[in-house]
Amino acid sequence: MTFEENSADILHADTQTALDRAAASTHRHEALFSDRAFHIKQSAVRDVFDISIRPGLVSLAGGSPYLRSLPLADLGETVRRIVAEQGLESLQYGAGQGTEELRRQACEVMAAEGITDADPADIVITTGSQSAQDVAAKVFCNPGDVVLCEDPTYVGALNAFEAYEVELQPVPMDADGLVPEALEACIATLREQGKSIKMLYTIPSFNNPSGITLAAGRRQRIVDICKAANILILEDNPYGMLRFDGMPLTPLRAGNPDDVLYLGSFSKIFAPGVRVGWALVPRHLHRRFYLACEAVVLCPSPLSQMLVSAYLRDYDWMEHIRASRLLYAARCASMLAALTEHLPDGVSWTVPDGGFFVWLSLPEGLDTYPLLYEAIDAGVVFIPGAAFTPSDEPSNKLRLAFSAVPEEDITEGVRRLAPVLRRAVDAAGH
Amino acid sequence: MTFEENSADILHADTQTALDRAAASTHRHEALFSDRAFHIKQSAVRDVFDISIRPGLVSLAGGSPYLRSLPLADLGETVRRIVAEQGLESLQYGAGQGTEELRRQACEVMAAEGITDADPADIVITTGSQSAQDVAAKVFCNPGDVVLCEDPTYVGALNAFEAYEVELQPVPMDADGLVPEALEACIATLREQGKSIKMLYTIPSFNNPSGITLAAGRRQRIVDICKAANILILEDNPYGMLRFDGMPLTPLRAGNPDDVLYLGSFSKIFAPGVRVGWALVPRHLHRRFYLACEAVVLCPSPLSQMLVSAYLRDYDWMEHIRASRLLYAARCASMLAALTEHLPDGVSWTVPDGGFFVWLSLPEGLDTYPLLYEAIDAGVVFIPGAAFTPSDEPSNKLRLAFSAVPEEDITEGVRRLAPVLRRAVDAAGH
Repeated sequence: MTFEENSADILHADTQTALDRAAASTHRHEALFSDRAFHIKQSAVRDVFDISIRPGLVSLAGGSPYLRSLPLADLGETVRRIVAEQGLESLQYGAGQGTEELRRQACEVMAAEGITDADPADIVITTGSQSAQDVAAKVFCNPGDVVLCEDPTYVGALNAFEAYEVELQPVPMDADGLVPEALEACIATLREQGKSIKMLYTIPSFNNPSGITLAAGRRQRIVDICKAANILILEDNPYGMLRFDGMPLTPLRAGNPDDVLYLGSFSKIFAPGVRVGWALVPRHLHRRFYLACEAVVLCPSPLSQMLVSAYLRDYDWMEHIRASRLLYAARCASMLAALTEHLPDGVSWTVPDGGFFVWLSLPEGLDTYPLLYEAIDAGVVFIPGAAFTPSDEPSNKLRLAFSAVPEEDITEGVRRLAPVLRRAVDAAGH
Repeated sequence: MTFEENSADILHADTQTALDRAAASTHRHEALFSDRAFHIKQSAVRDVFDISIRPGLVSLAGGSPYLRSLPLADLGETVRRIVAEQGLESLQYGAGQGTEELRRQACEVMAAEGITDADPADIVITTGSQSAQDVAAKVFCNPGDVVLCEDPTYVGALNAFEAYEVELQPVPMDADGLVPEALEACIATLREQGKSIKMLYTIPSFNNPSGITLAAGRRQRIVDICKAANILILEDNPYGMLRFDGMPLTPLRAGNPDDVLYLGSFSKIFAPGVRVGWALVPRHLHRRFYLACEAVVLCPSPLSQMLVSAYLRDYDWMEHIRASRLLYAARCASMLAALTEHLPDGVSWTVPDGGFFVWLSLPEGLDTYPLLYEAIDAGVVFIPGAAFTPSDEPSNKLRLAFSAVPEEDITEGVRRLAPVLRRAVDAAGH
């Protein structure tokens, strides 16, 4: 596929879906699709992922972690031993819940974040956090059920939930994250409409894509509101340890073992290529969640799990996190400085204190989706804001990722982006 | 968990589910479960898996491949290089569809089985074949839709489909596999009842658990019947290359690219611990299937995929398959000889010409489920037949696996099993 075809794909994903459906509808198999199949969407992020590896482009699109600081040669020797000396275990089927060692280690990671009472028996190791989101949607949501989420929120979670015909209801955020009063009002309105609200899906620390963090002072209040309304919280915390100042905010799960299903991931503190995450599930919900995990993958990969376990056992993973925090903090600072220097009036952005992302707002009424094409022509890639909301409306926002790009490239990428945004702002008469 | 608790678990899985539900129903979160959550079952196979690793027991339960013949030291060196020298790729996020190299190689594997027209663009790499079954159920089945299957069939597929509230309809088999006339009659009856039939799920070669193979002369007829009825075939072929005489039977997919969604797996011809399989999807169905795969795992593990690719590229994988066939053939012969020598009259069994399993039938009216407890006391483990049918009726069948156990242990296991079966047959007055 050529570059242009590919970028055209992104811009016309909706059109293409329609065409696709029209093409399929000429086939007698069209009638075989489930209702939910028509809710499974193209992910703009994934398409941009394919584009963004083209040479010459500066990609501020993908939220990939920086892996060059991992001790790859040593890890190679570690994985060699796992296969050569423990191959009958690492290459064989394993337990559906995951290895006991890794479940114990996940508890140690959570303890470092502030969850001190996790029991390995309540954990299920998952094929990345994505699989846990899929299973949560499956186990809890009937078609038409409501899941509350931040606005904006993680596109992969939107895709996971929408595939089960879930109605996603965005709850307004301000600079301190979810607004408790707005959450209460939203729940009240939905209940008046007779809706069944099952969960609040939240990324409280360094939300993807906005970088916004739920303030410490609001956290228990959010849990209490949900608890009072009998709504389960699905807390997705892949970036929690990556707070620039080094002090992770206490997760919602910490004091609320019955009311929060917590999702952890090794993708951002170790490596996404192993596809290993975990779910810490309230005990009264654990069995069904675990059985559903087994029904989707039989078992998580023993090879991947043993590599993650060895990494947590034999390496200074806390030091790697410390170094990563400093690196991401410096990259974030570079991005913020470049934005201040180059972007026109009328564009604002968030100032994250952790994670991978900065979220830009253009003047009301602008649509960042068509700007992506211009940005690619200018040699830089971002993700348009529309990807991160359940709404089909145009969005005047966009996401920039600073995690995977060296500082000088961040600066260059913002420099390339600036005239694209300036033209758009000027054309809109601002 | 102790041995006894664990075996009690198996025997009382249904009771425990009821207790579990009762316990959960005392919790205010009970109302949060989806309807489908109550269709997600305990897998007897997985529980027996946990038991069967106890020292001293002969496990004829788990369908694990034999891995000692893999060149583990060399594979260790291979995976070392994949991490040490290509870690920025193998440990990073990858493409949702899987790597192009592995999709090309999957086509080579299928060519060796008789599918010569597969296009890498039509393949999606999946987290084991299980994930492909889950996605197929998700993309094609509404609650109440019917999926036809062999009787007996793979327990993991039953679990995957039942989790989507699919109605599984077993179609009778004889020694030559699915009976075409029975399939036609079944479709006609279901249609008269107004049922929506979406798929035929079939393991045509060396069916798990029965070891029965769909005769070559019946294969196209089965496809034609489904095609005429507009029913998609989901062909699950993990054992296809493991035909003892070395000549794989041509898959249903071979001449029927539009009507068969083919599932392949590296678990039986390489190693299950990497959790890598693939789906070859009819082109008009590919896009939705692929997007659904992405929504459940984002991407298959690049590390696992690169290891499988290196194995297929740098090792004599066909020779490994040849050696595996001979090994499994010898183990199967040992099992059949031991069954002939030790089992009482009234017990019969299948004679597979490939795969991992022999399927035993006790006299009508007997239930093999309670016999498992006695067998464990006698030092041998099997899987009761009830695990492999959608029905809740007791089953007079049981599955024995010869794949993972040395010949002398197979003989010893059958020797231990014999008195348990003899007592049951005698007690039943046969």
